[in-house]
Amino acid sequence: VKFNGKHYRTVWMEGSSVFLIDQTLLPFEFKIVEIKVHTGTCDAIRDMTVRGAGAIGAAAGFAMAQAFLEAENQAGQGYVDKAKLLIENTRPTAKDLFAATGRVYNAGMMGAGQAVEEAQQIATEYISHALAIGQYGEELIRDQFRILTHCNAGWLAFVDYGSALSPVYAAWNNGKKLFVYADETRPRSQGARLTAWELLHEGIPHCIIPDNAAATLMSQGKVDIVITGADRIAVNGDVANKIGTLEKAILAKEFGIPFYIAAPLSTFDRACRSGAEIIIEERSENEVLFQHGPDPAGIFHTIRVANPGSAAWNPAFDVTPAKYITAIITEKGIIKPSTEEILNIIP
Amino acid sequence: VKFNGKHYRTVWMEGSSVFLIDQTLLPFEFKIVEIKVHTGTCDAIRDMTVRGAGAIGAAAGFAMAQAFLEAENQAGQGYVDKAKLLIENTRPTAKDLFAATGRVYNAGMMGAGQAVEEAQQIATEYISHALAIGQYGEELIRDQFRILTHCNAGWLAFVDYGSALSPVYAAWNNGKKLFVYADETRPRSQGARLTAWELLHEGIPHCIIPDNAAATLMSQGKVDIVITGADRIAVNGDVANKIGTLEKAILAKEFGIPFYIAAPLSTFDRACRSGAEIIIEERSENEVLFQHGPDPAGIFHTIRVANPGSAAWNPAFDVTPAKYITAIITEKGIIKPSTEEILNIIP
Repeated sequence: VKFNGKHYRTVWMEGSSVFLIDQTLLPFEFKIVEIKVHTGTCDAIRDMTVRGAGAIGAAAGFAMAQAFLEAENQAGQGYVDKAKLLIENTRPTAKDLFAATGRVYNAGMMGAGQAVEEAQQIATEYISHALAIGQYGEELIRDQFRILTHCNAGWLAFVDYGSALSPVYAAWNNGKKLFVYADETRPRSQGARLTAWELLHEGIPHCIIPDNAAATLMSQGKVDIVITGADRIAVNGDVANKIGTLEKAILAKEFGIPFYIAAPLSTFDRACRSGAEIIIEERSENEVLFQHGPDPAGIFHTIRVANPGSAAWNPAFDVTPAKYITAIITEKGIIKPSTEEILNIIP
Repeated sequence: VKFNGKHYRTVWMEGSSVFLIDQTLLPFEFKIVEIKVHTGTCDAIRDMTVRGAGAIGAAAGFAMAQAFLEAENQAGQGYVDKAKLLIENTRPTAKDLFAATGRVYNAGMMGAGQAVEEAQQIATEYISHALAIGQYGEELIRDQFRILTHCNAGWLAFVDYGSALSPVYAAWNNGKKLFVYADETRPRSQGARLTAWELLHEGIPHCIIPDNAAATLMSQGKVDIVITGADRIAVNGDVANKIGTLEKAILAKEFGIPFYIAAPLSTFDRACRSGAEIIIEERSENEVLFQHGPDPAGIFHTIRVANPGSAAWNPAFDVTPAKYITAIITEKGIIKPSTEEILNIIP
């Protein structure tokens, strides 16, 4: 992420501290948070100070490394085992989180220094994988394309560059003219807040649409391609991603528009045979019933936007069956969402 | 509408004043607004102080009647012609609005008293039509049904009872156990604010869902029937309704769930051959970029909920092709969305 001329990663580690761009304050305030202990990093993942598949993965790896550093002066094995459980309970749907904690945990058996090194390695890999996804995905984007994306799978959702937006940035930087429609993505509005913020900073023409307007946009022939990220991909090609992805995928199929998932191989779950096995996180109904933001004077308020006394249902993700997905863009190439191609490519 | 034990219509006329429940303040405040001149009633329709197909129709009829009363001391014919244009430019997609202004205009040729009488007659007809829609539609709702609705097509959207919710109220009052899922309906959140408010006041079990969650709900087998209202229905059965209706209709078809439209015959447009001819109102992007509501202390704020500097697209309605609609519930019975059945039933 470039901000005011300086380059930032979304999440990084120095010494025993994890540093994060606070995504709950964006797009209104750009603030770096320093977190000194793994329990604090867990809080940041849970409350979505850091969010997005790759950024969660990197943060989880760093949290695991923090736990090993803390364990040097603590109870040892029991301490890191407990920490691993705590980290893995923050966001149960995110495969990258489990991939990262597993790798760092194993490395940490050789010592805390190795745990930190492995966590740094994971973060660096996310960047090279995002760049590779951008290169492969860019070939799908032709000049003058109108691209629809859901939620945020850009810089902020990764350590840098992004998954779904990486091909968009690559195409833009190659001189292709583009227009991006960003679904608002209720209830947390990552499209309206984060994707729009990223695109504005990159100077890419875009506009926000209510989630309800996607079908109309498609019916008018104004969408050439849909690209979203993923939080977990089953061996049969079913994809868990932000709530609303399934709707966009069904609509895209209905209107004959190609629908792509962009995700690194760390998002694939070899142990998960189909989407039916994916645990879907349900979050607080308050994310639906309340909204937070600044008034014209810049003072922040939390306001109620729904009927007092009515409950809300707030599943954070949905599962898009493979049959609605044209292909998946990975750092090793573009594959069909079939068991054969997936088992052929994942480690 | 019953509120605190007293019965209200959503809109009514006494003397030369139009009275409205201010729907921009609901669900937080129940307030009746008195409007003394037709230009004020036009403002109330435009800014959605009164909204919903039937309520707009009744309010437009009253506004036209107000213009005739005003014309008695003014320029006569030119004055009412100008007023008719002003009223019809407030919400171009709403067929009921044009039906009402046309009827009251013609009656007004016999005198202002006749204009008022016709406008009162229209409002009364809406109530009997809503009751008839409830009776026909109730047969579609079985005991233990889970009903999904979009936007608000209840009491508030009509003069009383509603269109889409009228069958729900009838089924509930007949002792059927029901559960209603109310789509939030961004950007103006009529589902979360108005439908949830109505259902809570009737004591009907319900919850609000983000618009993005409808497909997941359907995929889990938790929706037995979808019912929405309509703002204009073409002769071929294409239906203009609140933005997002098309998405729900496509999803319902994909998951094999019956999708019904409930609307009086005044919503059908004999002059409109297909949905392609329906003018879709686009509203201010600020409805997407900002939200209004009370903080915990009850103080209202307008806050920004999207990236500053990014634009938004805000079509107020979409068109659902007839092929996605199971049937249309009218005050004369339930019909297929076919040209033959429609031409057979509309006046």
